[in-house]
Amino acid sequence: MNVSITGTGSFIPENRVRNESFLNQKFLNSDGSKFQQTNEIIIEKFKGITGIKERRYVKEDLNTSDIAFIASERAILDAGIDKENIDYIIFAHNFGDVPAGKSQGDTLPSLAARVKHLLKIKNPKCVAYDMLFGCPGWIEGVIQANAFIKSGIAKTCLIIGAETLSRIVDPYDRDSMIYADGAGAVILEESNNTHGIISHNSASFTYKEAYYLFYGKSYNKSEQEIKYIKMLGRKIYEFAVTHVPSAMAECLKESCFDIREVKKILIHQANEKMDEAIVSRFYALFNREVPKDIMPMTIDKLGNSSVATIPTLLDQILKGKVENHHLHTGDVIIFASVGAGMNVNAIVYKI
Amino acid sequence: MNVSITGTGSFIPENRVRNESFLNQKFLNSDGSKFQQTNEIIIEKFKGITGIKERRYVKEDLNTSDIAFIASERAILDAGIDKENIDYIIFAHNFGDVPAGKSQGDTLPSLAARVKHLLKIKNPKCVAYDMLFGCPGWIEGVIQANAFIKSGIAKTCLIIGAETLSRIVDPYDRDSMIYADGAGAVILEESNNTHGIISHNSASFTYKEAYYLFYGKSYNKSEQEIKYIKMLGRKIYEFAVTHVPSAMAECLKESCFDIREVKKILIHQANEKMDEAIVSRFYALFNREVPKDIMPMTIDKLGNSSVATIPTLLDQILKGKVENHHLHTGDVIIFASVGAGMNVNAIVYKI
Repeated sequence: MNVSITGTGSFIPENRVRNESFLNQKFLNSDGSKFQQTNEIIIEKFKGITGIKERRYVKEDLNTSDIAFIASERAILDAGIDKENIDYIIFAHNFGDVPAGKSQGDTLPSLAARVKHLLKIKNPKCVAYDMLFGCPGWIEGVIQANAFIKSGIAKTCLIIGAETLSRIVDPYDRDSMIYADGAGAVILEESNNTHGIISHNSASFTYKEAYYLFYGKSYNKSEQEIKYIKMLGRKIYEFAVTHVPSAMAECLKESCFDIREVKKILIHQANEKMDEAIVSRFYALFNREVPKDIMPMTIDKLGNSSVATIPTLLDQILKGKVENHHLHTGDVIIFASVGAGMNVNAIVYKI
Repeated sequence: MNVSITGTGSFIPENRVRNESFLNQKFLNSDGSKFQQTNEIIIEKFKGITGIKERRYVKEDLNTSDIAFIASERAILDAGIDKENIDYIIFAHNFGDVPAGKSQGDTLPSLAARVKHLLKIKNPKCVAYDMLFGCPGWIEGVIQANAFIKSGIAKTCLIIGAETLSRIVDPYDRDSMIYADGAGAVILEESNNTHGIISHNSASFTYKEAYYLFYGKSYNKSEQEIKYIKMLGRKIYEFAVTHVPSAMAECLKESCFDIREVKKILIHQANEKMDEAIVSRFYALFNREVPKDIMPMTIDKLGNSSVATIPTLLDQILKGKVENHHLHTGDVIIFASVGAGMNVNAIVYKI
């Protein structure tokens, strides 16, 4: 028995926010001091590192659970399943529903319960829960669903990654330009072939690294009431390029596939330069050059939507919406992510 | 192979808040109007229904993750395991760390990551995540850990339920008297005997019931910015006395134990009258009277601490701190819970 993705769906918010939108933003250093550089230079440098030219934000009337519902509906339709047969709804997010203009996240009821409500699923045996694991939450949700299916308590699971990071960014922090909104979802089912999830790997580094991503005060020292997503960028970069390649390599080893069989690496769209460095170091572990077109990227247009990046990327590729990137039956791919916790995970998957 | 609880721990906050503390509270109806009755009568009626005489609140300098850490440390010590051998830390909560005087919950990093950090666990293979499932979150965490162990991806798990509800109650709402703070934790391990988790049952009712517990505005119409935990008490009562007994009965049937073999029912300490009605209807399904001393209760002194009530109750009984209630090897017990989602679950467990 194996476990396969049988349907995907995503929601890409309509508000396109270009880098130029930040030209008049008042960016400050973490100590509240002004930058020496102009915003033009800050933005140019930002684009050079992250690869982000624009990102998407949700409209004011939408919340995380709303866009998750849309992505889920599409995944269910794509899988061609009866929604009443879903055994688990696993919703990976980190901040709950944060309505526009508010700072308080809302997680009562859980976002998974809200999605199930919106999907109008009646079956009470469809168990809906939320899972918080930083940006790698969606991959971890897939790993949990895999365990439920393998242990016999589920056959069909809906795993969602959705976030509206635009609602929790400090406008005075230039890192806020990284973050985006989005939702992706997949249907995972028990299958009788040898495709699907081959191996997986997860780790939580908390001894020194727990607060590399954290909720912190604004860089504007006169607005200290509300907390925002904050990160120690340099430390995260060093952490990611060290631990993600080894997690991917360990996972590949366990899968028994050869490095040359890997067709695509779908990596969390965190930061283009960091993602390139991760994949480069991964291939270096096998003394190989990075193959051309191994790593599809959408960060230039979609930004970093946390838990949503990988399911969205997968859905976009499968629907033929990512240029020069296609997946075929039998292809071996790797999913990999890194984020708050600090958590790292990877899955080797055969299409 | 079976899965057993090998250690328990809890933390009971030091601040004892008696019902009398609410004598001068300005309670309002949901429409903002004043009550006709005096606070003496409101409190007396409240005590009659819920059974609550006092509840515990954490001190100002403690957060949910801090008290979870204390309970976890005690559970690890009790189990006599090496903390570095824990494969999963599953933290059930619903609101994150809400510092005293603040309304914004903090879930970055996850509370499980914070506990792992405080426990000084170095092993990155110990995967730490948060799980949101309303009050039944701790039982659901145990069910998830059971699946991980049975599917072969874990041998030892730490499952925590902790909450500081005192930080998210509307002082103008008399229901706020129900809620309390607390933390409970258990160690779950693979075992080779026939004891431990025998059967389990979970359900999410979201079609009509999703918003029976919700985040809503204050009953004081001049303070509408912050959201608080709110409930439709009557609907919850009707829901609980209908769905919890059947979930327990289904779980017991699956366990193959006879109703007469059940020694204790450890039920979520939500409301004394409701809990009594649930257990009474459960026995009625088997045409039996409720046996004496079947249902240990601590709600009179500890209030309703959401996810923390059951692991705390279990720990208190096992440590001989609940009068007239003892557990012995071979005893069959039932854990059962109900809460936001609306979620219901149960476990039949052999000590």
